[in-house]
Amino acid sequence: MEKLIVIKIGGNVIDDAEKLHHFLKAFADLKGNKILVHGGGKMATKLAEEMGVEAKMIDGRRITDLETLRIVTMVYAGFISKNLVAQLQMFGCNALGLSGADGNLIKANKRPVYDVDFGFVGDLDENSIQKENLAKLTDNGFVPVFSAITHDGESQLLNTNADTVASALAVAMSNIYETSLVYCFEKKGVLMDVNDENSIIREINPTKYQDLIAKGIIADGMLPKLHNAFEAINKGVKEVFIGKADDLNELESSGLLGTRLIK
Amino acid sequence: MEKLIVIKIGGNVIDDAEKLHHFLKAFADLKGNKILVHGGGKMATKLAEEMGVEAKMIDGRRITDLETLRIVTMVYAGFISKNLVAQLQMFGCNALGLSGADGNLIKANKRPVYDVDFGFVGDLDENSIQKENLAKLTDNGFVPVFSAITHDGESQLLNTNADTVASALAVAMSNIYETSLVYCFEKKGVLMDVNDENSIIREINPTKYQDLIAKGIIADGMLPKLHNAFEAINKGVKEVFIGKADDLNELESSGLLGTRLIK
Repeated sequence: MEKLIVIKIGGNVIDDAEKLHHFLKAFADLKGNKILVHGGGKMATKLAEEMGVEAKMIDGRRITDLETLRIVTMVYAGFISKNLVAQLQMFGCNALGLSGADGNLIKANKRPVYDVDFGFVGDLDENSIQKENLAKLTDNGFVPVFSAITHDGESQLLNTNADTVASALAVAMSNIYETSLVYCFEKKGVLMDVNDENSIIREINPTKYQDLIAKGIIADGMLPKLHNAFEAINKGVKEVFIGKADDLNELESSGLLGTRLIK
Repeated sequence: MEKLIVIKIGGNVIDDAEKLHHFLKAFADLKGNKILVHGGGKMATKLAEEMGVEAKMIDGRRITDLETLRIVTMVYAGFISKNLVAQLQMFGCNALGLSGADGNLIKANKRPVYDVDFGFVGDLDENSIQKENLAKLTDNGFVPVFSAITHDGESQLLNTNADTVASALAVAMSNIYETSLVYCFEKKGVLMDVNDENSIIREINPTKYQDLIAKGIIADGMLPKLHNAFEAINKGVKEVFIGKADDLNELESSGLLGTRLIK
């Protein structure tokens, strides 16, 4: 089985030109099959301000109304996507900037309305990824670069969580490739001491995971992140790395980055 | 040699939801290899107004400054591209929304500055289209949908004329496929009498072309259009159709649309 790496970067990389340049160079240097998933960053908020569009919130939760969908489609699937691709091409990486509508690659379900109507938000299920279509691209040497804009198959675009997109892609592709998933975030990995960047826990398996939760070392924001990572592993992903985008070149040189989660 | 159809639509189709829906259905129904190239329409101007960005003009000619480039990238390569793709996917057409940066498919040269600095505008030459990369997509059943945003290979996106993109694609691909080029515009074809939509000239070869110019039947805006069409034919394109997007279904049923230009 050939290998595939799915890497997700968020706003902290997208919004920092120098960091982004460094990351994209390291990403381009990674050998083998790879997919990049990018979040949005502050650009959509900035555009909304320029356009005088106010962010819609209900009970502190962000709503994707039609105007917001228009903005995120323009910014994520347009400006950010094409600029990432143009930079990757400069580094010799044959990137293709895609949304989930392209090639019908990610078909989502509009989130049903219970207490809150989140608007044009798409949720994924186990059939969302058209993995055969996607493998046609990776098998031909293309490097898919995904924004988290998906579609419902009935011509409606939908705003989707980028972490979820990365995880769903990795899970689906693990039927075809031996797949690793990399979540880039602000810290160098899962830390024993949140104030000490050198206290990276290098490897966590499910037993150690339970132990770290019991000891209160994994808490707050790290809990859902690791929960989702282990869920991806349970569904077939070989390993999940959690670390800093700045350190991506370590993945090519040593095969490791930040904290490695395994079965 | 397999066949390929390259179709270009402009703002008059993009800006009219009903017309666009009708056209995309007919496009989806076209059998065989196909590529769509779309212009921009009024949406970029509208967004610029919402953002309070003024159009830059020098001597009546539009300039693509950095802010304008940002807008057209968001609107053409983002909003329009992804909405066209989502509609085509609904019709069962396996569309991929692409810019020229994606897959390095269209590499342009930033227009040199002589009397006017047009800004971030890209011109094409005979090496601009990476036809092998593009054929990998069409051979795998994908239907490329191009906005006219290109790149220079050094990470700079460039705004390019959509007619030129369509023509360059058709010329380059005529090495691999028997290629037809379709320009959709406001009229049903080249007309004997500009006020009579039923006076379509069904076929024009270079001899007839010279004759029609001499008689003053082809004049004004039609001159550069037909000049570019015959240039594409001289460079290897089999035939060029000029007609109305509304009539595209005729191409599938009869193999003809509006006026056919041939060698």
